Amino acid sequence: MEGTVKCSANYIPLSPISFLERAAIVYRDHTSVIYGDLKYKWKETRERCVRLASALAQLGISQGDVVAALAPNIPALYELHFGVPMAGAILCPLNVRYDPAMVSVLLRNSDAKVIFVDYQLLHLANGAFELLSKLKAKVPIMVVIQEVSKPPTNNDLKNSKIVYGNLEYESLLKTGQPGFEVRKPKDETDPISVSYTSGTTGSPKGVVYSHRGAYLNALAEILHNSMSPMCVYLWTVPMFHCNGWCLPWGMAALGGTNVCLRNVSAKTVYESLSRHNVTHMGGAPTILNMIVNASAAERKPIISKVEVMTGGAPPPPHVLLKMDELGFGVTHSYGMTEVYGPGTFCSWKPEWDSLPPNEKAKFKSRQGLHHVLMEEIDVKDPVTMKSVPSDGESMGEVMFRGNTVMSGYFKNQKGTKVAFDGGWYRTGDMGVRHSDGYISLKDRSEDVVCDGKNVSTIEVESVLFYHPAILEDAVCVCEVEGRFQCQC
Amino acid sequence: MEGTVKCSANYIPLSPISFLERAAIVYRDHTSVIYGDLKYKWKETRERCVRLASALAQLGISQGDVVAALAPNIPALYELHFGVPMAGAILCPLNVRYDPAMVSVLLRNSDAKVIFVDYQLLHLANGAFELLSKLKAKVPIMVVIQEVSKPPTNNDLKNSKIVYGNLEYESLLKTGQPGFEVRKPKDETDPISVSYTSGTTGSPKGVVYSHRGAYLNALAEILHNSMSPMCVYLWTVPMFHCNGWCLPWGMAALGGTNVCLRNVSAKTVYESLSRHNVTHMGGAPTILNMIVNASAAERKPIISKVEVMTGGAPPPPHVLLKMDELGFGVTHSYGMTEVYGPGTFCSWKPEWDSLPPNEKAKFKSRQGLHHVLMEEIDVKDPVTMKSVPSDGESMGEVMFRGNTVMSGYFKNQKGTKVAFDGGWYRTGDMGVRHSDGYISLKDRSEDVVCDGKNVSTIEVESVLFYHPAILEDAVCVCEVEGRFQCQC
Repeated sequence: MEGTVKCSANYIPLSPISFLERAAIVYRDHTSVIYGDLKYKWKETRERCVRLASALAQLGISQGDVVAALAPNIPALYELHFGVPMAGAILCPLNVRYDPAMVSVLLRNSDAKVIFVDYQLLHLANGAFELLSKLKAKVPIMVVIQEVSKPPTNNDLKNSKIVYGNLEYESLLKTGQPGFEVRKPKDETDPISVSYTSGTTGSPKGVVYSHRGAYLNALAEILHNSMSPMCVYLWTVPMFHCNGWCLPWGMAALGGTNVCLRNVSAKTVYESLSRHNVTHMGGAPTILNMIVNASAAERKPIISKVEVMTGGAPPPPHVLLKMDELGFGVTHSYGMTEVYGPGTFCSWKPEWDSLPPNEKAKFKSRQGLHHVLMEEIDVKDPVTMKSVPSDGESMGEVMFRGNTVMSGYFKNQKGTKVAFDGGWYRTGDMGVRHSDGYISLKDRSEDVVCDGKNVSTIEVESVLFYHPAILEDAVCVCEVEGRFQCQC
Repeated sequence: MEGTVKCSANYIPLSPISFLERAAIVYRDHTSVIYGDLKYKWKETRERCVRLASALAQLGISQGDVVAALAPNIPALYELHFGVPMAGAILCPLNVRYDPAMVSVLLRNSDAKVIFVDYQLLHLANGAFELLSKLKAKVPIMVVIQEVSKPPTNNDLKNSKIVYGNLEYESLLKTGQPGFEVRKPKDETDPISVSYTSGTTGSPKGVVYSHRGAYLNALAEILHNSMSPMCVYLWTVPMFHCNGWCLPWGMAALGGTNVCLRNVSAKTVYESLSRHNVTHMGGAPTILNMIVNASAAERKPIISKVEVMTGGAPPPPHVLLKMDELGFGVTHSYGMTEVYGPGTFCSWKPEWDSLPPNEKAKFKSRQGLHHVLMEEIDVKDPVTMKSVPSDGESMGEVMFRGNTVMSGYFKNQKGTKVAFDGGWYRTGDMGVRHSDGYISLKDRSEDVVCDGKNVSTIEVESVLFYHPAILEDAVCVCEVEGRFQCQC
């Protein structure tokens, strides 16, 4: 249009890095990260991330390189979500439940140049390194993240069979320059992270997120969970799972406080909620179960309402009721790694308030509709690509399109092509559309194979949800093809 | 990155049209627009906007054409914010306080093909048409918007000196096809609207907004004003002013309810707040003044807190205090047409809560910092482009850069070049930066000329704010170079 231009004054590639830059000014003295007795302010978090980026650049990391991480929800993993992109690189957070063999496969597939490893997970990294060495494959540089307040025990060090070099996280940060010129993406569709989904067949796929998608999905999460500036978020959802639903980035947009948690248990959750006035948290339905089944000794009173985002199997009515009594509000979402975490929210309508409890539960259990920054969800005949009728009965494949759909599978053109066949992302999940437009999941199109038998995954979830062993293992936001559900 | 693609599944040009498409599904039966006794649901609003787009296409409107509007905050102006872009065209909402001469200048400058005119403003449009005819200039097609519940009086018709053709808004809509294929932007930087700022010199500038900028600014408004899905917004800020700060689009993202208001007065505002459980509204400080100075007969009790976004001259402490007592929360912002309305927000910090009232007022009166989707604000030496020291004293020019900065001035390459000289948008406003990073405005670099004298505009505002005549004219969100302040 005559008179208009696209220039540095009015066009900036969308990137979550912008959120941190702003938080360091607007919320500079506000607490950014809490971990035990450790506290950082936003200006400190920014400086630490810039130092990290600088240190990575000094290690030779350049635009487009992959940097892996093996860590629970500790401050270093939060910082890696900014420090790695600020060096122009791509973060690859690995599931801490993988075995050394899987870690070695993923390090090879991602061609990671550096890996950051929590001191408690050295056995995993070392095991993977051994396997890589045997294959004469390249081994990345390892940076060990020590517990700041607690150096590794002899046992931890015993697990480290290979001398893992002399790089240590805090020492590395000290080598970084606080004045380092942050490398922002030239194009907003440049990759920011790659997350592996384990897959049912054992062949993992690297789901690539872009700066643009991460930026937009972070905003979508904030909007749908009514998260306000300076809110307090408890990290129960692993940051290695869909980059914690993009909330490491979203929390910087809000200048909020990240409460990091190494071990998730009823006790640590209640303690954190109470001590830090947590306003929001997330978690698989197992987390909800853990909360409502906590012993009296583990519980602490919840002073103000805590909003909980949950995904996957809809929580049963009695759990929802108990959560409500305890002071939690629950939002149900559905998604998968390929859509940056939650792709739908079950928006509650005021007219459902007056329904009897069983009717209410029926509505609450639906997967709902696409979030505000996702373009579209549909239930389609996977062959003809025609939408199924909105009758609540006609089955079809659930499909998404929008800016918060992955860029594709890393080094897997064929996989990407199949996933996007027809111009939509095909979830592989079967569902129906109700007369009011809302979607309900019915089953996966590719069934899960257990002991050679096809099993409806929805059935698997229902059984698992009530299994006592799941309670003990509540941290598992697990994946069957990267979906939010319990591990089979 | 190997394996990734940019395709229709994962890349959609950002456009506010997407918000309406989604609202029509997620919030389909929820009230979208209220105007007197008239109510629409979101599915109806979408259908009306599609019909409008179709009707415009049938009138020959194509990609990149300009469609003007002269109307107060009535449902038709809301619908034009979607219907016009859905026809691929550019909306040009004109200030209803312009005179026929200015309207004729702007119709020529914008080359508007169609103009929608509220029945009470026919004298303006007809006056402009007469002037255009005298100059043998092209006259756009006129569509008259009648009051749905109240046909034009003889007096209204008398004002219409020229036979204005036979197009009437509701009849036009009926000619549109509900199945029309909506024209979405091919590129998200395509223009969505052009808004004229009157300027101090009488040479108006057409500020061009893009689909991308409108989308992002709508989200920024939502975030900073903590607007939740299905909130209720009272339209006191004119939609012709910076496209109502982008909230016609933002309200569709939320599936909220737009309470339209033809005449803004203490009585109509209080009545609307009370009748419709309004949650949010906006307005110049004059609106705040009008609210606190309302007579007992005009007032109605405010049941739940109403969040008010205000811009320009910071409201004086006694007004803020009274607003608080009456049940209103006030957020102070600063901006101009060139940054899509508010470009900064004065984010309140918890540590200021305990300050004495005069200290509090000092902090509240600051312009604050850039909003979350604006990249950067700075105070710079306009010659060297160096940032001034953060000492609260060193003056410089306030400058912005980010995705919510205009695309440029329509057909005014020189003006655009000057505005973006140095890679930043130069506001022409002088300010300082405090030690905590926040910005305070001190004065305009180009003073306003009144009766041949240079006057500090900040001083003008302070005087006007207390002038009784301003109270009677509270709807004026006025412009000196498009800024939110009272008309000189």
